[in-house]
Amino acid sequence: MPVNLTSPVAAQLLPVAGVSLGIAEAGIKRADRKDLLVMLLSQGTRVAGVFTTNRFCAAPVTVAKEHLAHTDGIRALLVNTGNANAGTGEQGMKDARASCAALAGLLGCKANQILPYSTGVIMEPLPIAKIAAGLPAAVANVKTDNWYDAAHAIMTTDIVAKAISKQVVIDGVTVTITGIAKGSGMIHPNMATMLGYIATDASITQPLLQQMVSASCNRSFNCITVDGDTSTNDALMLIATGKSGAAEIVSADSKVYTQMLAAVTEVATYLAQAIVRDGEGATKFITIKMEGGMNEEECKKIGYAIAHSPLVKTAFFASDPNLGRILAAIGYAGVSDLDVEKLKVYLDDVLVAEHGGRAASYQEEDGQRVMQQSDITIRVVLNRGAVNATLWTCDFSYDYVKINASYRS
Amino acid sequence: MPVNLTSPVAAQLLPVAGVSLGIAEAGIKRADRKDLLVMLLSQGTRVAGVFTTNRFCAAPVTVAKEHLAHTDGIRALLVNTGNANAGTGEQGMKDARASCAALAGLLGCKANQILPYSTGVIMEPLPIAKIAAGLPAAVANVKTDNWYDAAHAIMTTDIVAKAISKQVVIDGVTVTITGIAKGSGMIHPNMATMLGYIATDASITQPLLQQMVSASCNRSFNCITVDGDTSTNDALMLIATGKSGAAEIVSADSKVYTQMLAAVTEVATYLAQAIVRDGEGATKFITIKMEGGMNEEECKKIGYAIAHSPLVKTAFFASDPNLGRILAAIGYAGVSDLDVEKLKVYLDDVLVAEHGGRAASYQEEDGQRVMQQSDITIRVVLNRGAVNATLWTCDFSYDYVKINASYRS
Repeated sequence: MPVNLTSPVAAQLLPVAGVSLGIAEAGIKRADRKDLLVMLLSQGTRVAGVFTTNRFCAAPVTVAKEHLAHTDGIRALLVNTGNANAGTGEQGMKDARASCAALAGLLGCKANQILPYSTGVIMEPLPIAKIAAGLPAAVANVKTDNWYDAAHAIMTTDIVAKAISKQVVIDGVTVTITGIAKGSGMIHPNMATMLGYIATDASITQPLLQQMVSASCNRSFNCITVDGDTSTNDALMLIATGKSGAAEIVSADSKVYTQMLAAVTEVATYLAQAIVRDGEGATKFITIKMEGGMNEEECKKIGYAIAHSPLVKTAFFASDPNLGRILAAIGYAGVSDLDVEKLKVYLDDVLVAEHGGRAASYQEEDGQRVMQQSDITIRVVLNRGAVNATLWTCDFSYDYVKINASYRS
Repeated sequence: MPVNLTSPVAAQLLPVAGVSLGIAEAGIKRADRKDLLVMLLSQGTRVAGVFTTNRFCAAPVTVAKEHLAHTDGIRALLVNTGNANAGTGEQGMKDARASCAALAGLLGCKANQILPYSTGVIMEPLPIAKIAAGLPAAVANVKTDNWYDAAHAIMTTDIVAKAISKQVVIDGVTVTITGIAKGSGMIHPNMATMLGYIATDASITQPLLQQMVSASCNRSFNCITVDGDTSTNDALMLIATGKSGAAEIVSADSKVYTQMLAAVTEVATYLAQAIVRDGEGATKFITIKMEGGMNEEECKKIGYAIAHSPLVKTAFFASDPNLGRILAAIGYAGVSDLDVEKLKVYLDDVLVAEHGGRAASYQEEDGQRVMQQSDITIRVVLNRGAVNATLWTCDFSYDYVKINASYRS
């Protein structure tokens, strides 16, 4: 079950002026399941995004990037679950384009004004006929207050929907930000089987919107990992409709940009952490704080070595303060001049290791007490420099194996 | 249960002239368990080794390296299970030295003529008194035909002992090679909670012995992975007593060196594969053959991305040809200019993927048939160059989680 994460409350998800959402059951993988989402955007809306770095990136990722680069303005996003349209070669590209053309036909716009997203099984042909047949119903039921259903329509192995809204006052005008995301396995930075959509009625120039989505992603989705697998399909999109009436944000040095970036990052961080809390089979939410590194790279190297170690993850599952496994992971992280005599490791407030070994003050019962919690922080103080970094991950349980040994069946 | 691996037959393990082995029950972690091994070496024996690259390397690793560098000739190896003496700081170093001194006292040699090895739980103090108390019994019962018991005495979570002998004729003289190893979890190249001891009665110069152990390790123990965790304690030692009467091997360009390297590599490969076959919770033995890479680094990068992917490993556990997960792993391996259109992926003899997606000829039942086997080969043909590399790994099962969630209890 998700770790300290509850389903969003529909009434707390605020409409974003200029965005309306429609859902349909297209029967892509199985019947009676919402598996199609259409997000219609008002004219003049700006869209920016970051995408997976996987070389086997899915056809819709390639098409979405193309359309973002050469468009007359994005008018809609189309998301399907049940099939990732990845590892599908030339036919996959045709199918992704065909899905855009089908929606464009219904909306009376060009195909390159549609951005396509797919998530689900890899290497199966996209059932384009089912998607095309499902689109009219999705378009017919679009509403602005449909974020709750939209968050549910993009779920795959997720147990709980991920959605949040936030409002900030920019120069005296209230601006709304609402975001949804999906993902619970194959989660790794740069990025994951993760789809995230954050929309705001603020107005932001196109280059600043791109800068904002990259910066917020680096502090949120690019700091999480469930199993270290980087998906073929990830995307985080930031949508700005400009309908709030607030003045356009035009400079990265402005107070309003900083304010807006902080708010978007807060939404992105909530969604990213929610993905980890709903990690496949997760029973523990683990925050890994790296402090005093020489640079961000080494902080993340060590942090991810801890976060990816199956031995560390199973020890957390067992609530066993087998802290040697954390030390071992730090040791093999690949920081070749690391002086293990100098670093300190804490489990929440408990000093666990220093001077290259177990801390003299450490008592097994203190470690045991922390390990019983469902939210735990590992803090590694490197004493090498002034750079910090924080990552989030979860433990590794029987259920992770169960879910992933039976996902296709 | 181990995958196609049976216990060695005692009568097939050949004594190596100049090596005698003694075993004791020292009660290090629990009673009634063989947990101490002493290997006595005849005067003039040469010893070379490769050790873990983990920065948190265990105290015995540091001491063994010291003693190899400044010694009057190694006279014995001392191995204990039940405690790794890793992450134990200054006290750990004292304890490792004390164990050498205790054995040296019994043998009438210097402490720096003893090499210590420990494996087991990390971050617990080494019970040096128990080890010292157990040593006289181990020394008292040394025998040359004791390899079978020695292989058992070094086991921790291993289900099956790993041991093999081989004979080769060098310049008309029969030379014997016998090796033992332990390890089943925390297995990763460079290296693993892996201890390996290969002894021969051949005569080899010290520099060539070092070259031989490194070269054979690179083609065997450095090509396996169970869970991607690199232990604090790994060591592979190559021991040459020179008692066979065969002429000393003095040149790396000689036919006898090549012959001997091949034989040692064969023994090392058997032991390394045995560790994977006995991988914690393993139900499948998976060979990953990378072909046509530009260099070994990229071959291993992609091979390990496949081997470490929990999603790939759980799909193998489920006998599910969910091949998209293999493609995804190839894609995120970090080879930034990889052209996925050019590569081909085979499951045994079945062509699975080409032209960036599923092969037109691929039938699910063919994949299903191969996945039912307990020994499976994934072959990735990169079509980028002429370099090949082979790795071995196992699948990821409920039992892996079970074993590692309860290891300390």
